[in-house]
Amino acid sequence: MSRRIPVAVLGATGTVGQKFIRLLADHPWFEVTAVAASSASAGRRYEDVVRWREPVAIPPSVAGLVIQKCAPPLPGQIVFSALDAEIAGPIEQEFARSGSYVVTNTRTHRMDADVPLLIPEANAEHLALIDRQQKERGWTGAILANPNCSTAALALALAPLHRAFGVERLFVATMQAVSGAGYPGVASLDIIGNVIPHIGGEEEKIERESRKILGALSNGAVQPAHFAVSAHTNRVPVVDGHMMAVSVGLGRRVSPDEALAALRDFRGPPSVAGLPSSPNPPIEVDSRPDRPQPRLDLDRGGGMAVTVGRVRPCPILDLRFVALGHNTVRGAAGQGVQIAELLVAEGRVDRGPGPERGQ
Amino acid sequence: MSRRIPVAVLGATGTVGQKFIRLLADHPWFEVTAVAASSASAGRRYEDVVRWREPVAIPPSVAGLVIQKCAPPLPGQIVFSALDAEIAGPIEQEFARSGSYVVTNTRTHRMDADVPLLIPEANAEHLALIDRQQKERGWTGAILANPNCSTAALALALAPLHRAFGVERLFVATMQAVSGAGYPGVASLDIIGNVIPHIGGEEEKIERESRKILGALSNGAVQPAHFAVSAHTNRVPVVDGHMMAVSVGLGRRVSPDEALAALRDFRGPPSVAGLPSSPNPPIEVDSRPDRPQPRLDLDRGGGMAVTVGRVRPCPILDLRFVALGHNTVRGAAGQGVQIAELLVAEGRVDRGPGPERGQ
Amino acid sequence: MSRRIPVAVLGATGTVGQKFIRLLADHPWFEVTAVAASSASAGRRYEDVVRWREPVAIPPSVAGLVIQKCAPPLPGQIVFSALDAEIAGPIEQEFARSGSYVVTNTRTHRMDADVPLLIPEANAEHLALIDRQQKERGWTGAILANPNCSTAALALALAPLHRAFGVERLFVATMQAVSGAGYPGVASLDIIGNVIPHIGGEEEKIERESRKILGALSNGAVQPAHFAVSAHTNRVPVVDGHMMAVSVGLGRRVSPDEALAALRDFRGPPSVAGLPSSPNPPIEVDSRPDRPQPRLDLDRGGGMAVTVGRVRPCPILDLRFVALGHNTVRGAAGQGVQIAELLVAEGRVDRGPGPERGQ
Amino acid sequence: MSRRIPVAVLGATGTVGQKFIRLLADHPWFEVTAVAASSASAGRRYEDVVRWREPVAIPPSVAGLVIQKCAPPLPGQIVFSALDAEIAGPIEQEFARSGSYVVTNTRTHRMDADVPLLIPEANAEHLALIDRQQKERGWTGAILANPNCSTAALALALAPLHRAFGVERLFVATMQAVSGAGYPGVASLDIIGNVIPHIGGEEEKIERESRKILGALSNGAVQPAHFAVSAHTNRVPVVDGHMMAVSVGLGRRVSPDEALAALRDFRGPPSVAGLPSSPNPPIEVDSRPDRPQPRLDLDRGGGMAVTVGRVRPCPILDLRFVALGHNTVRGAAGQGVQIAELLVAEGRVDRGPGPERGQ
Repeated sequence: MSRRIPVAVLGATGTVGQKFIRLLADHPWFEVTAVAASSASAGRRYEDVVRWREPVAIPPSVAGLVIQKCAPPLPGQIVFSALDAEIAGPIEQEFARSGSYVVTNTRTHRMDADVPLLIPEANAEHLALIDRQQKERGWTGAILANPNCSTAALALALAPLHRAFGVERLFVATMQAVSGAGYPGVASLDIIGNVIPHIGGEEEKIERESRKILGALSNGAVQPAHFAVSAHTNRVPVVDGHMMAVSVGLGRRVSPDEALAALRDFRGPPSVAGLPSSPNPPIEVDSRPDRPQPRLDLDRGGGMAVTVGRVRPCPILDLRFVALGHNTVRGAAGQGVQIAELLVAEGRVDRGPGPERGQ
Repeated sequence: MSRRIPVAVLGATGTVGQKFIRLLADHPWFEVTAVAASSASAGRRYEDVVRWREPVAIPPSVAGLVIQKCAPPLPGQIVFSALDAEIAGPIEQEFARSGSYVVTNTRTHRMDADVPLLIPEANAEHLALIDRQQKERGWTGAILANPNCSTAALALALAPLHRAFGVERLFVATMQAVSGAGYPGVASLDIIGNVIPHIGGEEEKIERESRKILGALSNGAVQPAHFAVSAHTNRVPVVDGHMMAVSVGLGRRVSPDEALAALRDFRGPPSVAGLPSSPNPPIEVDSRPDRPQPRLDLDRGGGMAVTVGRVRPCPILDLRFVALGHNTVRGAAGQGVQIAELLVAEGRVDRGPGPERGQ
Repeated sequence: MSRRIPVAVLGATGTVGQKFIRLLADHPWFEVTAVAASSASAGRRYEDVVRWREPVAIPPSVAGLVIQKCAPPLPGQIVFSALDAEIAGPIEQEFARSGSYVVTNTRTHRMDADVPLLIPEANAEHLALIDRQQKERGWTGAILANPNCSTAALALALAPLHRAFGVERLFVATMQAVSGAGYPGVASLDIIGNVIPHIGGEEEKIERESRKILGALSNGAVQPAHFAVSAHTNRVPVVDGHMMAVSVGLGRRVSPDEALAALRDFRGPPSVAGLPSSPNPPIEVDSRPDRPQPRLDLDRGGGMAVTVGRVRPCPILDLRFVALGHNTVRGAAGQGVQIAELLVAEGRVDRGPGPERGQ
Repeated sequence: MSRRIPVAVLGATGTVGQKFIRLLADHPWFEVTAVAASSASAGRRYEDVVRWREPVAIPPSVAGLVIQKCAPPLPGQIVFSALDAEIAGPIEQEFARSGSYVVTNTRTHRMDADVPLLIPEANAEHLALIDRQQKERGWTGAILANPNCSTAALALALAPLHRAFGVERLFVATMQAVSGAGYPGVASLDIIGNVIPHIGGEEEKIERESRKILGALSNGAVQPAHFAVSAHTNRVPVVDGHMMAVSVGLGRRVSPDEALAALRDFRGPPSVAGLPSSPNPPIEVDSRPDRPQPRLDLDRGGGMAVTVGRVRPCPILDLRFVALGHNTVRGAAGQGVQIAELLVAEGRVDRGPGPERGQ
């Protein structure tokens, strides 16, 4: 009966997989019709296998699905991948080869030259990379990636500044939530009442991915943005929400008011602004002196907005500010869903048989 | 019977006051013989008034002391002040005028040109400022200050780098414990599972005090060090221990190994290294990739050592690292006690009648 | 233009007052048209005074309201009181005398013989006490109270057991969230990584209020239920959600399956079940061995459902179980709103001019 | 050169193994001369393998030890076992058969009829069970067990009440620290800002072990104490320290003052009181209304004392109180060390060659 587009979720039992399923539960365009996980889980009902961690019930339409193996074919053109990086590569490639659009949260393909690393408000035009990907790899599907969880919030906050003034240098110290490490992830003995000043590989991801995201598309390739990034990553005893203290050097002296205007006025292209998952505005500026805070500001824009506060001059670079993003929504599953929406809006994926799905 | 030097504690019932009393409980040189607090508490026994927060019992020798008003005379030449900044100024001045050496944790006088702001390993020579202070103010006593809690750890970690290479620019993002805000301080509703990206006045203190501490004494005045500081301060749900992510620009290119050697080899002047509260070494370098951490490394050197880790190149400035200090020991009461020890070691305060106290 | 019933909130700037305002923001029947607070705040705009702690924005219709003093007249027949117990009594009485129905979260009048202490699913018939209250006190309005935050969850969980089997003895150990203490409430220094085994007055409230709530109405008076209660109350580092471990002795031997059936099948009277704030079902039974948990199960039924788990035999009394309730929704503001809804449904308060409000 | 008794630690790299090593570091009688762990670690240096979690440095004398396999022979007559229960049984038996006194923290043998389950202050006489154990099993060594972590604190707190008045019924609701689950143990995603009302097998252990510990030795067998126990176990976001709310029914009506006197006056037998690890007194009574608390009272008696507070009448049974014990000291490694001390003091283990070790 449904006129919604069928989609599948790979790695559906993990924390990001669960978040995909939750976000897709009442999605106006998509419907989860297949869930896949490790072969140990395949063949069993989703609700019998998953250690469900979301604070709402498992969507009834998914609870009873029988888990499938992570191999094509699965119904539908869109496959969301929440697979572990250790195994994701070949599986995702196999799906893309066989015609699926794989929107992946995994780091494996993010830096591939022909894989778009997307924050649609910031770089929707990078979607064109999949033409090259399909041509060069001979695939009928494609792989599209969302950024690393902390990079997603950072790059979105930087996008209007980079567009308006040019980012040249960047210092960022993160305070990241434990959900960013998956489940079981960080041991409670390690983090209760504590700070861990190290997250493996995270600083490199921030430094690398942010330049790709904010890079310019030219002749079918992304020229990374030319800024230097110094990242200091830390884990703090917070459940959800990555905070970051940022200092940024720009192409010219910019006053806090100019920056605030750029942040506040920032909108993605109209085709992105109209997507179901797109927050409006994508960046919320809060002028209260002690904001944003993870527990109070996490869910702005349904977890898709980034909140920026404390925009002020920096004694070394140009500006200082604080940014907060929801690491499992804008920084993972929600970002993936929005990318899939972009695929549909751009006509890359069939809208399905009926008229009622659109809105 | 005691041959120890009598000392008094002002603001003895607050959290820093309690820490003074705990640290002085078994001190080889000092003995708390007077406690003073607000007039509401004066006249009552210490143990009947204090809401004792230390995880050991109230020292029996202090428990039964009758609380006095915060006004001279109090027995002994040394007075530790843990008063609120709102009221500290006139009280501390009155004690100094009447002959006491007031070692204060309060911010009020820290930036006075004739008040030494001391981390003895880093700037013991600033003690000479009190000659000028006594002369110009006509006091027989003096006021000496310990730095702000986060500045203390930062400036100690910077001291060897500044001495060896010259600090020119500095980014620091702090993750500070709730004990830094006193009691009741930060509401649990605000901080459980949360981060607050703002601590009133803290960024200014870091930027200002670190330059004074690392400044050079010349003609009886401190010339502040000439480096620019960009501080981002945050409160995290940690009980004790201020963490900080630091990037530093130096007078020349310095390799991590050079910096590590400078940090590891750093010692205060011999007169400081021998003080009862001086840790040896003052800076502990930990090479494990995820250290320091507040819960595991807080008590190094009895809470007086600063732990530095993750020394690595910085893509923007020269070096990046993480530092941790115990905010109520090195960053408050312990620092005060060490300053008082310096006064004794330098002969500024009489050692008392007998031979047994020294060691 | 609105056809909704105008209501006022007393103590509107505190945490419970904020929760009232949030819950009433999109209420189908009610509209906040007046906010009142201390005279220090009166005359200023709500959004300029409140330290807003809810993770959503202040409802625009309330943000601009000018705060009034806590004295009649205020528009509307229904007044929600989130006043401090120290001052609530005379103010609430004055409103009731002048014709308002005061639904109070304050403890002051809870145990008054003519004040109904309401959990509508459990004791809607106690509403009749206000007839006596109005007659004896000569008031045209009335005072109605919601229970203490931990009692609300406990008594609702007990209601079906008491109805079916008769509760005779009760052991309850609570693990209560910090939001139960208001703002600033519990100091973070006291509770991070800690448990405080004492909440002033709470054990007495649980023991006293639960008997009144589950008592029988007879001749215009509530005969308290005849069970003995042993309460052990504890504060834990949780933001929202009161957990409780319960052992209960019943009028006869009852198997866990019988108890589960009673809990699952429990419904309030039809007039209550249809109220906008009434969860369906009021008690959710979770059979997973490690549930309920505050963070995962707090918001069931919009925060109005109580979740019960681990129903099993007790070696001493008859049954053991775990219960969880949202302390600021079912245990405070949400309970108050539901009581006001009951007033409307029972025809005690005019529904207002138009037909569109009801539904 | 050392005259201390050589001891070995099995499972030396886990959290309890680490605690053994820390507690034994400066022990007056014992010296760790061998560490054993899984075959994957065997052959490597201890400091290169262990993920050291204690907030002090690895004892230098242990850091360089080469890890051995968990099989005899290991030097010394005393072997501390911190092995996982899944593998402990045969290994511990093999050591006991070959002449070692195995003091185990593992649950495997605790309820064996011929294995003493020891809290020396409460039941040192149960040590005699090893005569039967050696005779019946034909072993020259023996297995001795310390109780489960929460049971240890509970049974010690109950011991004086049981001795003086006879415990007949017992409610206990625990709030247990995450360190009780080992490492990595509880996922931070599960417990930050949360409570988990279930710890697998813990309630059964409390109910079973407490009766054995407080049972009477008669004809070479322990007759379990005849009281009924209803346990409710919960995990809370605390690092160390198990709290418990207790109601107890006694053989006769007992006033709080009588109970307090029994608790305060309780001492183990003189041979136990003189052991290096024995706290004096074993039970500390705190009369402040909000004590004990894990963070403030955990380390009393070096972590070996149990703190009891809030002794008051119980409306259902006779008395209510709160107890706190250090779960990895009194509830694990510290208890094991004290048991080994008892073995030495009772002459079961040779004191070694020289006179200087004893004191």
